[in-house]
Amino acid sequence: MTVRRTPEAWMARALVLARRGLYTTDPNPRVGCVLVKDGQRVGEGWHVRAGEPHAEIHALHAAGEAARGATAYVTLEPCSHQGRTGPCAAALVAAGVARVIVAMRDPNPLVAGRGIARLREAGIEVEVGLLEAQARALNPGFIARMARGRPFVRLKMAMSLDGRTAMRSGESQWITGPRARREVQRLRARSSAVLTGVESVIFDNSRLTVRADQLELPEGAAIAARQPLRVVVDSRLRLPEAAACLREPGRTLVATLEGQDGEHRARLEAAGAEVLALPAAVDGRVDLAALLRHLAEREAVNEVLLETGATLAGAMLDADLVDEMQLFVAPTLLGGEARPLFALPGLERMEQQRPLEILDIRAVGRDWRITARPRRDA
Amino acid sequence: MTVRRTPEAWMARALVLARRGLYTTDPNPRVGCVLVKDGQRVGEGWHVRAGEPHAEIHALHAAGEAARGATAYVTLEPCSHQGRTGPCAAALVAAGVARVIVAMRDPNPLVAGRGIARLREAGIEVEVGLLEAQARALNPGFIARMARGRPFVRLKMAMSLDGRTAMRSGESQWITGPRARREVQRLRARSSAVLTGVESVIFDNSRLTVRADQLELPEGAAIAARQPLRVVVDSRLRLPEAAACLREPGRTLVATLEGQDGEHRARLEAAGAEVLALPAAVDGRVDLAALLRHLAEREAVNEVLLETGATLAGAMLDADLVDEMQLFVAPTLLGGEARPLFALPGLERMEQQRPLEILDIRAVGRDWRITARPRRDA
Repeated sequence: MTVRRTPEAWMARALVLARRGLYTTDPNPRVGCVLVKDGQRVGEGWHVRAGEPHAEIHALHAAGEAARGATAYVTLEPCSHQGRTGPCAAALVAAGVARVIVAMRDPNPLVAGRGIARLREAGIEVEVGLLEAQARALNPGFIARMARGRPFVRLKMAMSLDGRTAMRSGESQWITGPRARREVQRLRARSSAVLTGVESVIFDNSRLTVRADQLELPEGAAIAARQPLRVVVDSRLRLPEAAACLREPGRTLVATLEGQDGEHRARLEAAGAEVLALPAAVDGRVDLAALLRHLAEREAVNEVLLETGATLAGAMLDADLVDEMQLFVAPTLLGGEARPLFALPGLERMEQQRPLEILDIRAVGRDWRITARPRRDA
Repeated sequence: MTVRRTPEAWMARALVLARRGLYTTDPNPRVGCVLVKDGQRVGEGWHVRAGEPHAEIHALHAAGEAARGATAYVTLEPCSHQGRTGPCAAALVAAGVARVIVAMRDPNPLVAGRGIARLREAGIEVEVGLLEAQARALNPGFIARMARGRPFVRLKMAMSLDGRTAMRSGESQWITGPRARREVQRLRARSSAVLTGVESVIFDNSRLTVRADQLELPEGAAIAARQPLRVVVDSRLRLPEAAACLREPGRTLVATLEGQDGEHRARLEAAGAEVLALPAAVDGRVDLAALLRHLAEREAVNEVLLETGATLAGAMLDADLVDEMQLFVAPTLLGGEARPLFALPGLERMEQQRPLEILDIRAVGRDWRITARPRRDA
């Protein structure tokens, strides 16, 4: 018995394909495409890596002549610009595709709709919006960068059940178990950049890298070949030049205040750091919003993983720069003298509390993973 | 079609019946009984209230002559002592019951097995242990009192996602939503006593009572007719005689150190408080283990609901006197200056952390309810 698949099912397949690029397309979006003719799949593809063909090109190539008269399901509006791999809209037209179903428009307001218009001009029927929410969820960073001019910031914290990230001494290895740490590695691997504060680097001397063997993914080595940009917020330029992260593959950007031009800066640069001077915010520290704009505009950063302590985490929250939280909660208590999750100075009354929306809670080994986001309506 | 029910299904029915006494049997255990003959239920019952008949008596009464030759499923070993309602073992024998299936033995080591022995002496076939874990879960307090000479202590806390119970000022109304507060009312209603520290009473002036209208149970008024004993830990006898809890129905016991015999004690007693003098523990404050022994032995307290702040909660944990935690987690952040969940002084290194076992996490309105217990094996 042949069950005729619904348009939703085909688009869901395209989303599954798109997700295969989760760790590799950066800075490009994750995109999938399925070509369907007479109820049969005749080709499919996904974007693998920047510089390589887009999803539609792979699918058209797989379908060959069968693409003529087919319906294309694409998770993102086909591009109309002459990029490294040519405009996909033109390729769909040339292949004789009859219909194109698009999950979401291009999030870049400057080009949104152009690919769709080009298809329609060629007489192709186009529908937009099928499984749009799911398509948007695949590319939160690319969308934030294109639509808002800043990355999507995902805050990750490992905490005890009583809301503590480390003992008073700073000791914190390890609050959470190996499954949770593997998930953190995967969060790093999907991110364009890892953002931290200099205090965390000084205390933990963490490398902030993706380790192929800790991802527990078949293509781990290929994924770890691209290391996320390491960004250290360091207003007074205290990062030691011996910091472990400076000796790792990939780049380390040290965001400091303008005027930090002494000998230590020269030594840091000699050790491989790239020093970025930024204006101060009202609190006298690095302007975090300016840093994020820089990362989006100059470094094409889509998703940022914020891995840091209470001070920078609190400052990012206070500046309304956190889009999502991933809290890994260990079944343990560290007590009232241990280090807090967020410094939120000035928060004195219940009415000033920071409400969250909890999106998901699930077990991760012996720990629990809570996905939440700040409620901006509150 | 008649489906022959398994012994497990009949015992499950007896457990459902037993649970109907959740809020009313105190200080007796919750017990249910089903009588089955030829695959049919011929009678059932549960213990409703101390002083009224036991579950077996209700079931035998319902079955009448049909009890002869029947199998009795009972969630707790039938009693063999001449209590207010006569020994149930004798009643089962007199009714001619052929078999008795018991979920768990009597937890009192002094009488455990006597009821079973009496049944066997009368030629009745007895099996023990069917759904025992479920039966034990119904009566954690009764079991703790009988087997360990102290109540089962359930710690309830309402907290923000960053592990805070109140603002630095102490302001805390309301962290959690109405559904969570209803659950707390039900936890109070099933408890023999509510235990708190004098600081909490002074700050919140809480009444610590069960409010019929907040239970949202059909028999709310009948349940609230029995108020749990209110126990205030107050080493230096600072409870104001104007405290709201002293003017509520039910008793208030103030646990203080020996020697607090001044005028204030007299005024408190005049205001309705019962003052209990206890020895000091090594920390100079009321010996909490001695208090719990007193509650079990002198007040027949089964389940204690501990509703208090970080100091007493931490002291109870440190003394290993907490059996279960019910944490109501609100999707909000209160910041690093807000009040912690547990004061655990002296906890300095990760190896001293207090590991927990998380038994359940579930949504309660917009909040989350986490059930956990200290891992004593750790």
